[in-house]
Amino acid sequence: MGKVSLKDKFAGITEHWSPEVVAELNGQQVKLAKFLGEFSWHTHNNEDELFLVVGGVIRIEMRGETVELSEGEFYVVPRGVEHRPVADAEAAVLLFEPSSTIRLGD
Amino acid sequence: MGKVSLKDKFAGITEHWSPEVVAELNGQQVKLAKFLGEFSWHTHNNEDELFLVVGGVIRIEMRGETVELSEGEFYVVPRGVEHRPVADAEAAVLLFEPSSTIRLGD
Repeated sequence: MGKVSLKDKFAGITEHWSPEVVAELNGQQVKLAKFLGEFSWHTHNNEDELFLVVGGVIRIEMRGETVELSEGEFYVVPRGVEHRPVADAEAAVLLFEPSSTIRLGD
Repeated sequence: MGKVSLKDKFAGITEHWSPEVVAELNGQQVKLAKFLGEFSWHTHNNEDELFLVVGGVIRIEMRGETVELSEGEFYVVPRGVEHRPVADAEAAVLLFEPSSTIRLGD
């Protein structure tokens, strides 16, 4: 696999909430996605999930806590924690998570 | 663990080639490091290693191939591939690799 440009990859993503796998390593995947609006509440029982904002602003809503992330900030949602990503305007997000992770949760 | 700002974390790193672990998830670590000059040639026999450039430019030298990475570009060095990171000027780099990874190789 050659090098990956985040800018070039994001330029090719047109659909929201549709992560593209851009690398696989050590049983994990790096995915890029554009967020807009509210995703569904869901839980990954066996996978921690990292959200790194590359452009824009997102909120990770959890029951009882919300984390807002701007460009250059990341947060890890621990396994078992119900969450819902939200973006009021389009945002570009890099995800690190195990290859086994199901997008809508278990 | 709360959210992490790459900018804030890099601001606190003064030593070169001294990765700081900023997150652990799924048996993997996210590390931040400042590169300057040439690191040693080394090999990780059991770990793939991701280098994402957050600021500056680096080269990943491998035997027979060199990959140059600018801000917003990443590359995965597959396990077993001898490599040496080089930065002619100071660069800020995010690493994603298994927690078992030894900095100087096996």
